[in-house]
Amino acid sequence: MRFAAMVLEKFNKPLELKQFEINDLPQGYVLVRTLASGVCGSDVHIAKGEDPRTPVPIILGHEGVGEVIKIFGEKKDLNGEPIEPGDWIIWNRGVVCRKCFWCTVAKQPHLCPNRKVYGINMSCKDHPHLFGCYAEAVTLLPEVEILKIPKNIDPAILVIAACSGATAMHTLDSIQESLTDKTIVVQGVGPLGIFCAVAAKTMGASRVVVIGGSPERLSLAKDFVDVALSRRELSEEERRKKVLQLTHGRGADIVIEAAGDSNALLEGLNLIRRGGIYLIAGVAVPQKPIPLSVYEHLVVKGITLHGVWVSDTEHLVQAVHIVTSHPKVFENLITHRFKLDRANEALKCVEERKALKATICFD
Amino acid sequence: MRFAAMVLEKFNKPLELKQFEINDLPQGYVLVRTLASGVCGSDVHIAKGEDPRTPVPIILGHEGVGEVIKIFGEKKDLNGEPIEPGDWIIWNRGVVCRKCFWCTVAKQPHLCPNRKVYGINMSCKDHPHLFGCYAEAVTLLPEVEILKIPKNIDPAILVIAACSGATAMHTLDSIQESLTDKTIVVQGVGPLGIFCAVAAKTMGASRVVVIGGSPERLSLAKDFVDVALSRRELSEEERRKKVLQLTHGRGADIVIEAAGDSNALLEGLNLIRRGGIYLIAGVAVPQKPIPLSVYEHLVVKGITLHGVWVSDTEHLVQAVHIVTSHPKVFENLITHRFKLDRANEALKCVEERKALKATICFD
Amino acid sequence: MRFAAMVLEKFNKPLELKQFEINDLPQGYVLVRTLASGVCGSDVHIAKGEDPRTPVPIILGHEGVGEVIKIFGEKKDLNGEPIEPGDWIIWNRGVVCRKCFWCTVAKQPHLCPNRKVYGINMSCKDHPHLFGCYAEAVTLLPEVEILKIPKNIDPAILVIAACSGATAMHTLDSIQESLTDKTIVVQGVGPLGIFCAVAAKTMGASRVVVIGGSPERLSLAKDFVDVALSRRELSEEERRKKVLQLTHGRGADIVIEAAGDSNALLEGLNLIRRGGIYLIAGVAVPQKPIPLSVYEHLVVKGITLHGVWVSDTEHLVQAVHIVTSHPKVFENLITHRFKLDRANEALKCVEERKALKATICFD
Amino acid sequence: MRFAAMVLEKFNKPLELKQFEINDLPQGYVLVRTLASGVCGSDVHIAKGEDPRTPVPIILGHEGVGEVIKIFGEKKDLNGEPIEPGDWIIWNRGVVCRKCFWCTVAKQPHLCPNRKVYGINMSCKDHPHLFGCYAEAVTLLPEVEILKIPKNIDPAILVIAACSGATAMHTLDSIQESLTDKTIVVQGVGPLGIFCAVAAKTMGASRVVVIGGSPERLSLAKDFVDVALSRRELSEEERRKKVLQLTHGRGADIVIEAAGDSNALLEGLNLIRRGGIYLIAGVAVPQKPIPLSVYEHLVVKGITLHGVWVSDTEHLVQAVHIVTSHPKVFENLITHRFKLDRANEALKCVEERKALKATICFD
Repeated sequence: MRFAAMVLEKFNKPLELKQFEINDLPQGYVLVRTLASGVCGSDVHIAKGEDPRTPVPIILGHEGVGEVIKIFGEKKDLNGEPIEPGDWIIWNRGVVCRKCFWCTVAKQPHLCPNRKVYGINMSCKDHPHLFGCYAEAVTLLPEVEILKIPKNIDPAILVIAACSGATAMHTLDSIQESLTDKTIVVQGVGPLGIFCAVAAKTMGASRVVVIGGSPERLSLAKDFVDVALSRRELSEEERRKKVLQLTHGRGADIVIEAAGDSNALLEGLNLIRRGGIYLIAGVAVPQKPIPLSVYEHLVVKGITLHGVWVSDTEHLVQAVHIVTSHPKVFENLITHRFKLDRANEALKCVEERKALKATICFD
Repeated sequence: MRFAAMVLEKFNKPLELKQFEINDLPQGYVLVRTLASGVCGSDVHIAKGEDPRTPVPIILGHEGVGEVIKIFGEKKDLNGEPIEPGDWIIWNRGVVCRKCFWCTVAKQPHLCPNRKVYGINMSCKDHPHLFGCYAEAVTLLPEVEILKIPKNIDPAILVIAACSGATAMHTLDSIQESLTDKTIVVQGVGPLGIFCAVAAKTMGASRVVVIGGSPERLSLAKDFVDVALSRRELSEEERRKKVLQLTHGRGADIVIEAAGDSNALLEGLNLIRRGGIYLIAGVAVPQKPIPLSVYEHLVVKGITLHGVWVSDTEHLVQAVHIVTSHPKVFENLITHRFKLDRANEALKCVEERKALKATICFD
Repeated sequence: MRFAAMVLEKFNKPLELKQFEINDLPQGYVLVRTLASGVCGSDVHIAKGEDPRTPVPIILGHEGVGEVIKIFGEKKDLNGEPIEPGDWIIWNRGVVCRKCFWCTVAKQPHLCPNRKVYGINMSCKDHPHLFGCYAEAVTLLPEVEILKIPKNIDPAILVIAACSGATAMHTLDSIQESLTDKTIVVQGVGPLGIFCAVAAKTMGASRVVVIGGSPERLSLAKDFVDVALSRRELSEEERRKKVLQLTHGRGADIVIEAAGDSNALLEGLNLIRRGGIYLIAGVAVPQKPIPLSVYEHLVVKGITLHGVWVSDTEHLVQAVHIVTSHPKVFENLITHRFKLDRANEALKCVEERKALKATICFD
Repeated sequence: MRFAAMVLEKFNKPLELKQFEINDLPQGYVLVRTLASGVCGSDVHIAKGEDPRTPVPIILGHEGVGEVIKIFGEKKDLNGEPIEPGDWIIWNRGVVCRKCFWCTVAKQPHLCPNRKVYGINMSCKDHPHLFGCYAEAVTLLPEVEILKIPKNIDPAILVIAACSGATAMHTLDSIQESLTDKTIVVQGVGPLGIFCAVAAKTMGASRVVVIGGSPERLSLAKDFVDVALSRRELSEEERRKKVLQLTHGRGADIVIEAAGDSNALLEGLNLIRRGGIYLIAGVAVPQKPIPLSVYEHLVVKGITLHGVWVSDTEHLVQAVHIVTSHPKVFENLITHRFKLDRANEALKCVEERKALKATICFD
C-alpha cells in the first residue's frame, strides 16, 4: 500500500508531497487511514524550527482522526473494547514510557522525559515512517492509546480534541474544585481559548468571560459564554471593571491564559480575586520574561499559578466527550478545510490568523 | 406587626395557627416577610418527633425565601452587598458557632455541634419566636447568612435550594474530581435525587442515570438525565446490566444515594466500579442496620463511601445558582402549593408521596 | 544455573522443595538471587486456597529483596538509575498492564484487572518459572518495577516494605491532609498495623494510638506510639473513653483498620470524630457481613470510609524510605528467621501467631 | 490595674514606654498577662511605616504567649476547653470577620478583607488599647481564638508559633501530598525557614535541604536537616548540582521561599523538578519585580507556584504542636531575650540580623 504525506525536509521550506510504501508492520502496530487532521498553531512554529524537540525530515500533524485499516495482532481501546478494521478512532498524540519516575511514582505521565509526540518529535526517517497526520495514513506504535469514536460525527470537528481540547481539559482538571458559582476568565479566543470556555460552561461555571481581539471569534464565543470582552474596544482598565462588576468587586475565581502570550499574565493577575487560581495553558514557545511582582501579584492575594504542559490520557477522553456533546459549537470553529497537497496553504492561513481552526481533509 | 404561624405544640398533633406580635428586634436581626416556604420530607419526621433534635413548641419549616421588612442595624449578604428593605433573600437554614473546632480548625462547619437550624431545633417559645418558615414572617438572627436573589423568579421554586439543593451540592462537592466523562447513578427521584441529577448534568457529567419507582417522577427526570431506570419495570439484575452496558462493563464512577433508604446501598455497591465513590445523602433518620461485606463491597474494589450531612454556606450559594439557571426544571418539581393555614394538608400530601415538592405560598 | 524453590503443588499440602534450571531468559528479564523473603499472613490463606486468584503449582512469596545476577538487556530502576549485576534491589510485587482504563485514565493502577502478583497469581508452570520469593532466585519480567536499595541494611528487615509496608503507605496516602495535630487510631498490631503506626508518626501525626491483643506486640509498639491500648485489659467502652480523653471528647481524626477483622469496624466507627476518615486496610479475605447503621455510623457524623486495596508504585518507594530511616524498629519486628527448606515451619509459625514477622533467609 | 507598653507614636521614631489603665472590659474580652512576646522581622518594617496596613499610635508585637488574668464572661479555647484565670494561652494573631465571602463561601479566612491583626493594624488609640504584645498585658477581643498551652514549657520558645510557625504550617499544608520520599529545598534560615525545615522533617520529608548565608544559622540547621548549603561557600551552580545529585538528576519536589527576597525565585525555579511545587512564604513586603520566563520556568515543567499569605486557625494549632514536640530545637533559636523597656534594642538587634530570634520577656 502506498500513502502520500507532506514532509518537512528542512525548516522554513515548504512541505513536500512524498509517497510511502507500507506493507507489513511489526506486531502490535495499527495502520490507520487518516480521515481528518488538524493544523495546529504550533505547526507553524515547528515548521520554522522554533520547537527545540523537532528533527527533520518529519511529517507534521499531531492531531488526527482515522479509520483503522489493519491491526497487526490484537489491540484494545482505552475502554477495553477490541479494535477492528473499519473502526473510527482518535489517539493520544503523546506516547510515554510508563516506566520512569513521572509515569509511575509521580503519576504525571505528561511530564515523562521520554515522551514522543506524533508530528512533533518523531522523524519519518525511522521505520515505518508515517509518524505525522499530514499523511493519508498513520502508523500507530503498539504503545499508542486509542479511543473509538462514533461514526455519526464529522471527523474534522474531532481533531481539535487531540491537542487543544486535551490541553484545555488538562487545564480545567487542574482546578479540583466545583466550578458552580465560579467566575472564569479565559484570555484568548483561538481554538484553545474557545475549548476552555466551552468546557468551563459544560462543567458548570456560572460566569465565563472571554477576552479577545478578533471580532469574528468574539462573536462566535458569544453564543456560549456569558461575557465577551474586546481588547480592541475596551481598555485594560475597562475590562478589569467589567470583571469586578460581575464578581461583587472580588475579581475572577479562575483565570486561564490561552492567548499564547506571556504578557497576558500582567493583565490576568489584576483580574483574579484573592485566593484565586491562574492556569497558564497557551504559552507554548519561549518568550521574553515578564516582570512579576511577587508580593503584590502572588503573596498578598494568596494566588496559585500553574503551568499546564500538554495533557494526559484522561484529558483526551474528556475532550472527545466535550466535542461529541457540542458538535454545533465545534462545527463553527472549522473555518477552513484543505486537501492534503495544499497543506502549505493551510499553514499560511493559520499563520496569518485567517483561520480559527483549519483542517486537512481526505476523500 | 402581627404575623400568623403554624405551630407544632405536641408531636403527632396537627399544627395550630397562632399569631405572633413582633415590634422591635435586637441589634443585627433581620425581619423577613415569607414569600414561599418548602415542605421538606423531613418535616413529616419532625412532626412525629422522630428527629431527636427537635423541641416543642416549634414553627416548622427550614426552607424559606422572603422579602426583607426591616434590618435592625446594618447587614451585608454573603457577597458583601448591603441588604435593604424590599430585597428578596434566601438564607442558610443552619446557624453555626464559627468558634468551635469544626468551624475553625477542621473547616467543616456543617458538623458544628452548636449548629441551630430554623424549623428543626429552634423553639418558638424563645424570643423573638419566628424561627420557622411555616409563618408569615421569619426573624433572622444576626449570625444568619443571607444571599440576595433576583426578583424575576417565582420564589416557590427557590425554596428547594435551601435544603435539598444545598445538600445535593454538598454531595457533588465531595467528589473533588472532574465529572466530565464520568457516569453517575442517582438512587431516588425525590427532590434530593432530582436536584443531584440536575446538578451532576450541569457540572458536566457525561452520563447520569437515575433509579426510581414513581413513573411520574421518572418521566420528569427523563427530560434532563441520560437514562431513567424503573425499579418497578426492571429487576435489580436488569438495572445492573444497564449500568454495566453504559460503562464498558466497569460500573458507575459515582453512585449517590438519595432514596432515603439504607437498603439502597446494597444495590448501589454492586453498581459502582472499582475505585468509585459512593455518596450517601438521603438517609436522614436512623434505620435498621444493613449487612456490609467489607472485603467484597469496599476493600477489593477500593471504594470510598462518604456520608453527607446537611450543607455548608457555599452549597447554598451553588444551589441557588443551579435553580436560577434552570428555572423550568424546578418549576416542574413544584406539584403542590398550599396556603399557610393548610400546612397540615401539605404535610399529609408529602407523607403520602402525592407531591414531588410541595410549598407553602403567601399572598 | 539451578535454583531451589518451595512449591505449593496442591492447596492444603506442604510446600515441596524443587529445583529449577535457569539459563537464558528473554530480553528485558532480570534474574535475581534472593537475599530475603517475607512470610506474609496472606501466604497462610493462599496455601489453603482461600484466595480466589491463586493457581497451582505456585512458588509462594510476594515479598522479596535480592541481588541482581544478570540483566538480559538493559534496565533502569524507578529513579532512572541503570541496574547492574551485584546491585541489591526490591521490586513492586504487582505487575500492571499500563494500558487499561484504571492504569491510564483513572490513574488507579492498583485496581488494574490485569494485575499479576508474584507469589499470588503467577504459576511456576509457566516459563521461566521463578515467580515467587520462596526460592533461591526470582525471574523478574521486563515490566517489573525495580528500586535499588543500599547494601548497608539487613535485607530481612526490608521485605516488609514490599507488601505490608506498601499497603500501609497507600493507606496513609489516602488521607491527603496534614497529619500534624491529628489523632490516629490503628486497630491491630501485626506487621501492617505496626507499619501504619510507625509511618503515621514519621509523617507527623501528633497522637498515634494502637489497639491490640498481644502483650508482646503492644509492648513493642509502645516504643514509638503515644498510647497502646490492650483489648485484653480494657473493655471496648474503656478504650473509647481513652480515645475521647485524648481528643477533647471529639474522637480520633482517623482510624485505620489493620486487624484483618471486619468486626473491628464496629468498634472503630465509635472511636472516630465527626468528619473523620476511616481507612480499611487489613481485611484481605472475604468475611461475614457486619451490621452497618448508615445514619448513625456514617451520615450524621459525615464519615468517609475507604477500602484500601494493595498498593501502587509510589507506595513501595515510600515504604522503603520508612524502613531504611527506622532500621531499629523494623529489626525488632523480625521475630523469626527460617532457611528456605523450612518454609513450611515458617508458615505454621505465622498461622499460630507466634511470629510477629517471619522471614526466609538465604546464605 | 496598670500595664506598661512600648508604643510606636510615629514611624521611624523609637518606641516609647507608656502606662495603660485597664479596669473593666466589655463582655467576652479576656485580659492576659504577657509571658513572652516575639520580635518578628516584620516589626522592623512596621516600625518604619513600610507596611501599608499600620496606623499609629500602635503597640507593636503580634506574637505573644500569656497567662489569663480575667475572663469577662465565659470563653472556651479552640478545643472547647473552658478558659480559667491562671491558664497559659497562645492566640491567633489575626481576627477575621467570619461573615464575608472568604470566611464562609471560599473557606479561606486568612484572606478575609476585614482581618485585624494584633500589633499590625490595631491602634492603641482605640479602647481598650492593649492590642499589641510589646506590653505587660494584652486585651483579647471576644472573637480572638485561644489555645491553652502546657505550663511545662518556656513561653519564650512558643512565641514563634504565633506567626512564623503558623505561616510555615500554612506553607506545608498547601502541599496536600505525602512528603514521604520527597526532597524539599527551603531557601532561607531565619525563623520562618528554620520552622519550615523542622516541620517538613516532622511531617516525614525524606530529604530537607536548606540554603542560607549565615554560618551560625546553617550550623544550627545541620542538627535536623539533611543538607545545609551555604550561599557564601557554594556558587548557585554548585548548589544546583548538589540538589540534582540528591534527586537522581530530577530536582527538588518542593521548594519553599523563606528568604524574604523575591530574587530567590530565580534560583529556586532552577532547583525544582518537572511537576514540582513552589511555595512563596517569605516575601512579606513589596519588592522590585523579577523577570519570569513563563515558558521555561512554569509551563514546560508543569510547575505550581503558590503565594502563601499569613495563616489560618489550624496552622496555629499545628505550629504549637511542632514547637512543643521539639522544644530543644526551638530553645536554640532564641538567641536574644530583652526586657520590655529595651524593645528598641531588640528591634535593632533583629534589623542588624544579630539575632536569629529575639524575644521580649517579662518577670
